[in-house]
Amino acid sequence: MIDCVFCQIVSGEKPTDFVYQDNKVVAFYDARPLAKIHVVIIPRKHIASIQDIEKEDELLIGHLVWVAKKIAQDKGLTGYHLVFNVGSEGGQTVFHIHLHLLSSDFKPLL
Amino acid sequence: MIDCVFCQIVSGEKPTDFVYQDNKVVAFYDARPLAKIHVVIIPRKHIASIQDIEKEDELLIGHLVWVAKKIAQDKGLTGYHLVFNVGSEGGQTVFHIHLHLLSSDFKPLL
Repeated sequence: MIDCVFCQIVSGEKPTDFVYQDNKVVAFYDARPLAKIHVVIIPRKHIASIQDIEKEDELLIGHLVWVAKKIAQDKGLTGYHLVFNVGSEGGQTVFHIHLHLLSSDFKPLL
Repeated sequence: MIDCVFCQIVSGEKPTDFVYQDNKVVAFYDARPLAKIHVVIIPRKHIASIQDIEKEDELLIGHLVWVAKKIAQDKGLTGYHLVFNVGSEGGQTVFHIHLHLLSSDFKPLL
């Protein structure tokens, strides 16, 4: 997706320091952090939203969560929140799936 | 886990109306809803926290998300939030993994 900023990050067109990367996902610090540690984990594959995932994407989505857990562990976080915002009404601003990893100083959550 | 309230829900010991169920997960309304629609999706298998997931749990975790998406679709939600709170510091109160599905009237999130 030429006009997708997260695809540009994946391709290297928009140079970004990766906190983590493998052949399925990349992770980087959120440009507008809402917590001391605020990392975004995205699939290399363009999927606009959680609303668009298919059954065969389950392993990829689970991998995003596993990577978030791994990054949190590496950063020494003992508590944190993992959030997908879905749809513009749900606060999604970039239409390429991304999982927010937020350290526990991010408040309020449930 | 005998003393886990979510295992009691899975086993039927604590009778609960399921919004969705299959051989891997069950979903039910949160007892203390924080949004008009607030559903909790949990694995039948007891895993205390996202902190405890292993690589082989990726498919199960991805399935939780896929089920959340399916429920949201069935309920006609166009925007929503999916949240894992991790660790007591991260706001986790029941130590059996659960994914919160919150309709977009839940505020504030990022």
